[in-house]
Amino acid sequence: MDDIQIKNEVEIMDQLSTALRLAEEAQKATETNAFMTNNLWILVAAAMVFIMHLGFSMLEAGFVRKKNVVNILFKNTMIIAIGLLIYWFVGFNLMYPGVNKGGWFGFSGFMLSPPDGGMTAAYADYTYWSDFIFQAMFAATGATIVSGAVAGRIKLTSFLLFSIVFVGLIYPITGFWKWGTGWLDARGFYDFAGSTLVHSVGGWAALAGIILLGPRKGKYTERGTKPIPGHSMPLAALGIFLLWFGWYGFNGGSVLSADPELVSLVFTTTSLAAAAGTVGAFFTSYLMFKTHDLSMVMNGILGGLVGITASADSVSVNSAVLIGLIAGILIPLSVSFFEKLKLDDPVGATSVHLVCGIWGTLAVAIFGQFDEGVGEFSDQLIGILACGAFSFVVSFILFYVIKVTMGIRVDEAEEIKGLDYVEHKMSAYS
Amino acid sequence: MDDIQIKNEVEIMDQLSTALRLAEEAQKATETNAFMTNNLWILVAAAMVFIMHLGFSMLEAGFVRKKNVVNILFKNTMIIAIGLLIYWFVGFNLMYPGVNKGGWFGFSGFMLSPPDGGMTAAYADYTYWSDFIFQAMFAATGATIVSGAVAGRIKLTSFLLFSIVFVGLIYPITGFWKWGTGWLDARGFYDFAGSTLVHSVGGWAALAGIILLGPRKGKYTERGTKPIPGHSMPLAALGIFLLWFGWYGFNGGSVLSADPELVSLVFTTTSLAAAAGTVGAFFTSYLMFKTHDLSMVMNGILGGLVGITASADSVSVNSAVLIGLIAGILIPLSVSFFEKLKLDDPVGATSVHLVCGIWGTLAVAIFGQFDEGVGEFSDQLIGILACGAFSFVVSFILFYVIKVTMGIRVDEAEEIKGLDYVEHKMSAYS
Amino acid sequence: MDDIQIKNEVEIMDQLSTALRLAEEAQKATETNAFMTNNLWILVAAAMVFIMHLGFSMLEAGFVRKKNVVNILFKNTMIIAIGLLIYWFVGFNLMYPGVNKGGWFGFSGFMLSPPDGGMTAAYADYTYWSDFIFQAMFAATGATIVSGAVAGRIKLTSFLLFSIVFVGLIYPITGFWKWGTGWLDARGFYDFAGSTLVHSVGGWAALAGIILLGPRKGKYTERGTKPIPGHSMPLAALGIFLLWFGWYGFNGGSVLSADPELVSLVFTTTSLAAAAGTVGAFFTSYLMFKTHDLSMVMNGILGGLVGITASADSVSVNSAVLIGLIAGILIPLSVSFFEKLKLDDPVGATSVHLVCGIWGTLAVAIFGQFDEGVGEFSDQLIGILACGAFSFVVSFILFYVIKVTMGIRVDEAEEIKGLDYVEHKMSAYS
Repeated sequence: MDDIQIKNEVEIMDQLSTALRLAEEAQKATETNAFMTNNLWILVAAAMVFIMHLGFSMLEAGFVRKKNVVNILFKNTMIIAIGLLIYWFVGFNLMYPGVNKGGWFGFSGFMLSPPDGGMTAAYADYTYWSDFIFQAMFAATGATIVSGAVAGRIKLTSFLLFSIVFVGLIYPITGFWKWGTGWLDARGFYDFAGSTLVHSVGGWAALAGIILLGPRKGKYTERGTKPIPGHSMPLAALGIFLLWFGWYGFNGGSVLSADPELVSLVFTTTSLAAAAGTVGAFFTSYLMFKTHDLSMVMNGILGGLVGITASADSVSVNSAVLIGLIAGILIPLSVSFFEKLKLDDPVGATSVHLVCGIWGTLAVAIFGQFDEGVGEFSDQLIGILACGAFSFVVSFILFYVIKVTMGIRVDEAEEIKGLDYVEHKMSAYS
Repeated sequence: MDDIQIKNEVEIMDQLSTALRLAEEAQKATETNAFMTNNLWILVAAAMVFIMHLGFSMLEAGFVRKKNVVNILFKNTMIIAIGLLIYWFVGFNLMYPGVNKGGWFGFSGFMLSPPDGGMTAAYADYTYWSDFIFQAMFAATGATIVSGAVAGRIKLTSFLLFSIVFVGLIYPITGFWKWGTGWLDARGFYDFAGSTLVHSVGGWAALAGIILLGPRKGKYTERGTKPIPGHSMPLAALGIFLLWFGWYGFNGGSVLSADPELVSLVFTTTSLAAAAGTVGAFFTSYLMFKTHDLSMVMNGILGGLVGITASADSVSVNSAVLIGLIAGILIPLSVSFFEKLKLDDPVGATSVHLVCGIWGTLAVAIFGQFDEGVGEFSDQLIGILACGAFSFVVSFILFYVIKVTMGIRVDEAEEIKGLDYVEHKMSAYS
Repeated sequence: MDDIQIKNEVEIMDQLSTALRLAEEAQKATETNAFMTNNLWILVAAAMVFIMHLGFSMLEAGFVRKKNVVNILFKNTMIIAIGLLIYWFVGFNLMYPGVNKGGWFGFSGFMLSPPDGGMTAAYADYTYWSDFIFQAMFAATGATIVSGAVAGRIKLTSFLLFSIVFVGLIYPITGFWKWGTGWLDARGFYDFAGSTLVHSVGGWAALAGIILLGPRKGKYTERGTKPIPGHSMPLAALGIFLLWFGWYGFNGGSVLSADPELVSLVFTTTSLAAAAGTVGAFFTSYLMFKTHDLSMVMNGILGGLVGITASADSVSVNSAVLIGLIAGILIPLSVSFFEKLKLDDPVGATSVHLVCGIWGTLAVAIFGQFDEGVGEFSDQLIGILACGAFSFVVSFILFYVIKVTMGIRVDEAEEIKGLDYVEHKMSAYS
C-alpha cells in the first residue's frame, strides 16, 4: 500500500512538474506572441507614416506652380532622407534620452546605442528599433509642414539647412518636454499623437519662415490679393488621400501597442473627424466664397485630422465628429485671416497645422475623458504656448541667421523664372 | 509518515492550484492575443479599403475630360466624408441592427450605442469600433461606383444628395438582407465580400443614373458613336493599381478574422482572378478592336476583382483563374453592349461592377465548394434579382424625384464649358 | 483515513489532468497565434510588394516621353498579370521544387498542388498560399526592371514574350540556386532579400536587352549625347516613394516571419540605407554636374534600397548607413559610365539594379555579421557571377531569337511617332 502510494506520489510529482513547466512555457509564449503582434503594428504604422511623406510631396507639388514642382519634390525627397539620418544621429537621443525626467533637456549621446542589441522584449511592447523607426518617421514630418508654406521662393540649401536643425534639434526638444517625459509631461499636459508636438510646432516654424521670407511676387499687389492656383489638383488630391491613409499609422501607431480597444477607437475617431472636417470646410467655404472650393475641402480633411490628433484615444466618437467639424470650419476662416495679414502660405500649412493643431490641443481639455489632473485647460494652454514660443523663436532666429549669412530667398528674376530652372536646370514636365 | 504525507499533500495541492492558475491565465492570454491579431487585421484591412476611395478618385479623374477633373475629385472627396458620417448616423444600425433575423428590414436607432463601450472581446473576433469602421469604408464605395458612371453632366448637389440616400439607406437595406442576417441569408444566398451587395448594387444605381441623365453631349451623334478619351492614363492606371491593392483589404478583411488558411487563400484567389481578368480583356479586346487598349485591360483587372469577390474564400485557386478570365472577357463585350444601347458610362462602371458583379455572384454556384443548401444557383439568382430590383428601382425613383425638383443635369452650355468652371470656378491644371 | 486519502488522490489526479490539458491547450493556442501573426505579416508584406509594381509603373511612366506613356503603363499592367499567372503555372515549382537540394535544377510539376490543401501550419510559419503569393509578387518585379531599361523602342509583344520566359524560367532557376536550397545555398552564398537574385538578375537581363536593342533615336548623335528628359517628375517621384514603401514588405517580409527583432532591424537598416543613398547621390551628382538633379537623387534612394537588400537582416544599423551611402555615390558614376558606353537606359535601371545589386551582394561579405562559412567574399562573388552569367546569357539568347524571328524593335518612323500611337492607337493625355 505504501509502495503504491509513494509510486503514486512520485508520478503525481512528475506530472505536476510537467504541468507547471507547460503552463509556464505557455505563459512565456503568450508574452512573446503579444510582443510580436504589438511590434508588428508599430512597424506597419511606421510604414504608413512614411506614406505621409509621399502625401506631403504630392499635396505640395499639386499646390505650387508648374515652374516650382521639381524644387518641391526635391525638397521633400531630401527631407525624409536627411530627417531619418539626423534623427538617427542626434534627434532620437535628444527626444528620448531616458534621463532628466520632468526636465527641460536631456541627451544620451550621438548615434544609437541600443540596450542589449536593441532587440529585447524588455524594452517595451516593441523593440528598440521599432521605437526608433516609428519616431524617426514622425520627426521628419515637421519639416515637410514648413516646406509647403515656404514654397516658391526659398533657397534650396537654406531650406535644407533649416530642416536639419529643425528635425535634429527643435522638434526633439519640445518632443522631450512631453513624450520624453519632460516638464510638460509632469504637469499633466496631454497630446496623444502630436496636435502640438508635431503639427503646431511645425506650423509655428512655418509661420516664422513666411514672415521672414515675405510673400511670393504677385500675391499681394496694390490691386489686391491675387490667388495663385496650384498647378495640379489631381496631385493635390492624391496627396490628401495618402495623408489621410498615413494618419491611421500616425494616430493608430501612437497607441504604442496593438491594444484592440484603443487602436480601433483611434481609427474611428480619426476617420470621423476627417469626414466632419471635410463637411465643415464644405459649408463654411460655400458660405464665404459662394463656390465649391476643392482646396478648402481638401484642407478641411487635413484640419479634421490635425484637430483629432491630440485626443484621438480619449474622446468619444461623437466628440470626434464635433472636433473635426470645428476644425473644418476653422480652415476657410484661417486662410482668409492669414491672407488679410498678407502672409503668403501656398499650401495653407499654417491654417491646417498651426491653427487646427492649437484647436486640437485645446479640444483635449473640452472633450477629453481623463482622470483629474490630466489635460486640463490651463495645462494644455501652457503646452501650446511653451512649444509654440520655443519653435517660433528658435526657427525665427535660425531663419534670420540664414538670411543674413547665406541668404534665404532667391532673387526676383529667379523667382519669376521658377526654382526648377534656377536650382535644378530641369522642368517637371516636358 | 502521516505528517509527511499530509505535508506532501498540502504541497501538491499548492502546486496544483498554481499549475491550474497558470494554465488558465495562459489560456486567457491566448484568447487575448488572438483577439488582438484578428482585430489588427480588420483595422489594417479597413485602411486598405480606404485606399480604394483614392483608387476610384484617380481612376475616375483619369477617365474624364480635363474640364471635369476638379468636379470628379470634389465628388469623391465628399463621398468618403459624407459616406462615413451617414453610415455612422444611420447606415450601420440599418445594416446590422441585431434584430429581425431572416427579415426584410431592421433598425436599431440613430448614431452608435456600442455595447460595453464598444470595446470588449465578447463582441466578435474584433471590437465594435473595428466592425463599424471596416463596414463604413465599404459602405461609401458603392456611391463611388455611381460617381464615375454619371461623370461629366450631373449636378454636384444632386449627386451629393443621391449619395447620402444611397449610403444611408439603399446600400444598408440590401446589405441587411444578407450580411445583417436578413431573408437572403436565411435562404442560403452566398456573397462573400460583395459582388452583389457592394458592386452590382452600386452598378444598378449607376445604370438608373445614366438612363435618367442621358449621354454626354457629343457621345452618340448622327454620325455614330464618338469615343471621348479620358484626360490622363497615368492617373487611371494609378487608380487601378490602388484599387487592386485595396481589394486585399476588401476581400481579405471580409474573412472577419486573421484566420491564416482563409486569408491566404483569399489573397491568392483575388490576385489570380485579377491577373486572369487582365489577360481575358487583353485577348478579347485585341480580337474585337485590333489594338492593345489600355482602358480595356485596366477594366479587365477590375472585372476580375469584382468577379472573384463573391467567392474568394470558397473556390479553388484554379477556379479563381477561370472566374477572373471570364470576367475579363466580359469587359469589352459589355462595354460594346452598353454603347450599342447608347448608354453613356465614361469609366465603364456598369461593365465592371454590374456585369462582373452578377457574373461573380453566379460563379459562386458554379465553382463554390459548399455544403448543400448554400450558394445554389437559384438562391444566387434570387439574390441578384432582389438586390438589383431594389437598388435600381429606389435609385431610379430617387434620381427622378431629384430631376423634377432640383434638376439632375447641368445645362448644355455648362456641360460644354465643363463642370470645373461651372461648379467650382477653378481648373484642375494651370 | 485511507478512504480520504484515495479520494484526495482521485481528486488530485483529476485536477492534475485538467491542469495538464489546459496547459497543453494553451501551448497549442500559442502556436496557433504565432502562426496567425507570422502569416498575417507575410500577406501584408505581399500586398506591399504588390505596390512596388505600381511604383515601377509610375517611375517608368514619369521617366519616358509623353508619346510612350500608354505603352509603358500597358507593359507594367501586363507584367504583373502574366507574371502572377506564369509563376502560378510553372515558376513557383521551379524555384521551390522541394527536391534536388544543393543542385542546379528542380521542378515539381505544373500548377500548384499544395500539401494538405495548402493550409496547414506544418508547412512553415505561414501557409502554402501565403508563401506562393509573397514569392509571386517578387517574381514579377524582375521583369519590371527590364521594362524600364528597354522603354521607348521595344515591340510590345516581343517584350511580353520575354517577360513570360523571364518570370517563368530565368528568375526561378537562379532563385532555386539559393532560396530553393540549390548549389549556391550549399556553398554559403548569402542574399537576404535579393540584391542578386532579384535585382542584379533583372539588371543583367536589362543589359542584354539594351545591348541588342540599341539606343533610342537621337540619344547618341554625332554632336554628342543628348539627355532625353522624362515627361513627368511628379509621376517619377510618386513611383520612387511607393517603391520605398513597398520595400518594407520586400525586405521586411523576407524575414519570413514577424520575428520582432529581425523585422524591426530590417525596417531600420532599409530606411537608413535609402536615406544615405539619397544623400550619397545628392553630393556626388552635385560634384559631377554642378546642379541638384532630381533624377539622380531619386535613383540614389533606389540604389540605397537595392544595396541593403542582400544584408538588411545581418548588418548593423551603422553599416547600413555606409552601404546605402556608397550605393548612392555609385548611381551618378554608373549612369555616366553607361552613357559613355553608349548604352541607353531611359530610367537608369542598370545603374540601380545591376550595379547596386552587385555592390549590395559584396557588402554582405564586408559588413555581414555571420558565423564562419557564410557570406564570404569568394562565395558572394561566385553567386554574383553565376547568376549574372546565367541571366545575361539566357536573356541575350532569348532577345536574339526574338529579334531574328518576330523582331524586337519598332521601326524608325514608329519610334518617332511614339509607341502609344503605334501599338495602342491612343494618347496618355488628351
